[in-house]
Amino acid sequence: MAEKILIIGGVALGPKAASRCKRVAPDDEITMIDENTYISYGGCGMPYYVSGEVQNMDSLRSTNAGAIRDPEFFRKMKGVNVLTRTRAQKIDRAKKTVLVEELLSGEKREMPYDKLVIATGSRARVPEIPGVTLKGVLSLTRLEFAEEIRKACEGGKITEAVIVGGGFIGLEGAVALADMWGVQVTVIEMMDQILPGVLSPTLAKIAEHDCRSHKVKVHTSEKVVRLEGDGERVSKVVTDKGEFPAQLVLFAAGFIPNAALAADAGLKIAPFGGIETDEYLRTSDPDIYAGGDCAAIKNIITGKYGYLPLGSMANRQGRVIGSNLAGLNETFPGYVGTWALKLFSLSFCGTGLTAPQAKKAGFDAIGVCIEQLDRAHFYPEKEMMTLELVVDKSSRRVLGLQGACKDGDAIKARIDAVAGVLEYAKPTINDISNLEVAYAPPFASAMDAVNTVANVADNVVSGRFAAITGDEFMELWRNRKNNNVFFIDMRPPKASKKIEAEYPEWHAIPLEEVMDRLSEIPKDRPVALVCNSGLRAYEGLLLLNNQGFKDVVNSMGGMQAVTKMGLKP
Amino acid sequence: MAEKILIIGGVALGPKAASRCKRVAPDDEITMIDENTYISYGGCGMPYYVSGEVQNMDSLRSTNAGAIRDPEFFRKMKGVNVLTRTRAQKIDRAKKTVLVEELLSGEKREMPYDKLVIATGSRARVPEIPGVTLKGVLSLTRLEFAEEIRKACEGGKITEAVIVGGGFIGLEGAVALADMWGVQVTVIEMMDQILPGVLSPTLAKIAEHDCRSHKVKVHTSEKVVRLEGDGERVSKVVTDKGEFPAQLVLFAAGFIPNAALAADAGLKIAPFGGIETDEYLRTSDPDIYAGGDCAAIKNIITGKYGYLPLGSMANRQGRVIGSNLAGLNETFPGYVGTWALKLFSLSFCGTGLTAPQAKKAGFDAIGVCIEQLDRAHFYPEKEMMTLELVVDKSSRRVLGLQGACKDGDAIKARIDAVAGVLEYAKPTINDISNLEVAYAPPFASAMDAVNTVANVADNVVSGRFAAITGDEFMELWRNRKNNNVFFIDMRPPKASKKIEAEYPEWHAIPLEEVMDRLSEIPKDRPVALVCNSGLRAYEGLLLLNNQGFKDVVNSMGGMQAVTKMGLKP
Repeated sequence: MAEKILIIGGVALGPKAASRCKRVAPDDEITMIDENTYISYGGCGMPYYVSGEVQNMDSLRSTNAGAIRDPEFFRKMKGVNVLTRTRAQKIDRAKKTVLVEELLSGEKREMPYDKLVIATGSRARVPEIPGVTLKGVLSLTRLEFAEEIRKACEGGKITEAVIVGGGFIGLEGAVALADMWGVQVTVIEMMDQILPGVLSPTLAKIAEHDCRSHKVKVHTSEKVVRLEGDGERVSKVVTDKGEFPAQLVLFAAGFIPNAALAADAGLKIAPFGGIETDEYLRTSDPDIYAGGDCAAIKNIITGKYGYLPLGSMANRQGRVIGSNLAGLNETFPGYVGTWALKLFSLSFCGTGLTAPQAKKAGFDAIGVCIEQLDRAHFYPEKEMMTLELVVDKSSRRVLGLQGACKDGDAIKARIDAVAGVLEYAKPTINDISNLEVAYAPPFASAMDAVNTVANVADNVVSGRFAAITGDEFMELWRNRKNNNVFFIDMRPPKASKKIEAEYPEWHAIPLEEVMDRLSEIPKDRPVALVCNSGLRAYEGLLLLNNQGFKDVVNSMGGMQAVTKMGLKP
Repeated sequence: MAEKILIIGGVALGPKAASRCKRVAPDDEITMIDENTYISYGGCGMPYYVSGEVQNMDSLRSTNAGAIRDPEFFRKMKGVNVLTRTRAQKIDRAKKTVLVEELLSGEKREMPYDKLVIATGSRARVPEIPGVTLKGVLSLTRLEFAEEIRKACEGGKITEAVIVGGGFIGLEGAVALADMWGVQVTVIEMMDQILPGVLSPTLAKIAEHDCRSHKVKVHTSEKVVRLEGDGERVSKVVTDKGEFPAQLVLFAAGFIPNAALAADAGLKIAPFGGIETDEYLRTSDPDIYAGGDCAAIKNIITGKYGYLPLGSMANRQGRVIGSNLAGLNETFPGYVGTWALKLFSLSFCGTGLTAPQAKKAGFDAIGVCIEQLDRAHFYPEKEMMTLELVVDKSSRRVLGLQGACKDGDAIKARIDAVAGVLEYAKPTINDISNLEVAYAPPFASAMDAVNTVANVADNVVSGRFAAITGDEFMELWRNRKNNNVFFIDMRPPKASKKIEAEYPEWHAIPLEEVMDRLSEIPKDRPVALVCNSGLRAYEGLLLLNNQGFKDVVNSMGGMQAVTKMGLKP
């Protein structure tokens, strides 16, 4: 039976659901409304449009074949009726109607539905502080804003910009402005690290160093208190710690799901504001679906409602909703939290929980880091990769994996290999040790980095070695006057001797020499080991343990990790 | 309790097991014997040494830090005793001894063990035909051979080479010789495609075209019958179809597990010759372990014993055996069959079963192909990717995924994402549609290629469209005089009109025009559609089906796939 379907929101999930439904049930009558002018665009492409990497804005809203996805395209090619500049004001669930306002004419009318889809997206979280309405204060949430920023950059009007929030969009914006337009960018993040919730403090330090070494200033634990203007335009950002001149301020301090319409209609809303959905992506009203940035879905690892406003999530959910509108019975499994971010020299990628998140969720979690080449060490082209596996110590369950590499596809490969297993199985450390990933020397080491990080986690969790992170190692080193720690650099002498010459407390004892030089190492002091990547020092640690040294720690990721964080002895 | 452990074989699994065991149980007494001189080397690196990409052979047998892994290294750094040029002749399971011969002196003696590891590897399958003992007839199974080939290339002695077998090693050898040394390489493969068992006929055609367009001759369904010499050296290869001059012949027609020692000792051997192992990688004698190229392990998808002689498998298995030697109780899950291969322009990668393999294993299998960009279509750098998902039609279970892309890491990412799920879950099509892989425009489309291929498989299996492969489409086109098929190219006119001008039976009807030009399409003839990637023609097919056209097929992967196979209208 043909149904009347109304879709509120036409950016990502809405068009996907509409097109999929029409392909399966061509007789259904679908209307999609959106309050803005542009619909069906790749919102995630906005930073690349701002940077100029994407030259033409139309390519963000065109098909692969170059057709612009405007209302006429949807009418003709998809059989979907689209009304833009049309805002949904109220859902009447009893009558199954939506009151809409045509924004240009101000006219209001009721639209009936058999099935309704709420795809209202999200908006940038903007704090209620003075100055947020000044010109030049924007977010990267709408094509119109992206256009405005790009034009201002092209016109040379922006020499300094402040980005409020060090999450995905904030940092993508920072790269776009700094790398491509040479703008002096300052990122202000309220939390004590950038990418909170998606990176461990250690990996975040690597990301911060990548930003800083590309001239982006990163200020963490700092809060914007007001914006000041030069006439109508913003000219300065004032924080609780300082002042920053800025001709452009981007708010990227998180997103708020647009759930008011749903809440007013009495639909269940999750504590953080997203519309609660079940495995069929239905709201608490079975005739109303919700998905994308306005919805809350179950986190597969914690079992709790969570929020992952990504275009990929919206697209996949849109297809499931479209199928179900058409009478199929498809389910969406929830999410584990998989993401990717290209910064300057490094790309970052992750899935599942970070160690701090996992602890918050009640797990006895630890993050174990490695540095390993993404290819066979004898293969000419290769990059060092950082991986951090998050595991529950008592159950040995794997909860997440995050990492960084110069080669973005190489890090995506490792993360995605684990993402699927997190989504559909409850992997243990042993499962990831034996994860059967693709191997040949141009693609990986025979023991792939993703296997190695699980092997190291196995050793740590089994108590075979005491591990500290590179930043913890350097903290011990900084406090060496007080902590009585004995430091050993187990790398070949070429690397270690130079540091030893400057700091005699930095003992250059290569792994090969350690058994012959045991007498130099005090048995009554804690010992901290470091090498290039953590591997040699692990072997050294085992040798020392066998010789009766009791309090030896190894710095995970070795000097590779230390250097990536911008730290120095 | 410290145990006496004897390991037969010192290339990949042996050293790994020995090192791991010593790290966990340092008191164990380990001896590793090998009949050759070189031990613990990256055998998979040999093609890259032959090509010169790996400059120095020592880098194939050195650690990341540059230490050569010779017997002295194992003694000093790992506490493992190594005897090279020492061959195991007979295992006495009752006495728990192995009779060994020192090859240089001819001396024999018995070595006792508490636990034994058989890691005897494999050898190249060489047919019993005249001429195989001529000089210049080699395989890529030993460092000594790689050295000989490289020296001959450097000396300009090789202008023509024949490679017998179009599997991984054969093709890696072909790339090394053709790409780096300009040798005229001919690959002779007995089966009717290269990479049989790991690629579908369609993907194999793409691989063959990549070889041919880089001047490697590929002869399939052809059998070598004898080699002829010019004196001691090989000079010609004679097949059942022709003759090929060659100064070098490489046998790469598969590997035979070296299992005679185990068989003689009465251990269970799989039908194809590998030593049967259980989940702890024990043979039928619980005091004897086996792994790597000499062993048979369970295929997780078919449940039957199979064979996957890869360095990565040997390394992962080596760690499990090492753990178990040391008294831990670790399991190995079996294998799904994940691999990677870099050819010339393209890298290939796969996991699980191909459609022909799956049918042989009793599944009602079909392979569904797509062509999709590896990144957002608006992102400046991107490559077209081929993916083929293998599914069981009745159960909708996913059995495998293979693919190709210019960017090797990008294809590895898609394959590995599915590999882990195949290993630890029994994914359905819907699971892969919703596989939560990492997304941002520099890494993927919002609907990742791996999601799309599952979506297309869903549509095919649900009967929403009739799919043919690009080669099947071109076969219909070639036979158009007989089959009465009506051909429609749904691409934008720029691409299709040129072909139509030459062949009037090639009808250029862009998707946008199809509804206005229905009268041009006969209802009483089969219709075959093609577009650029398969997407537009799918929409066109749905439109035609809705208009009452009953017999319409769509060419999966469109002209992208056709062109990659080297086919032309």
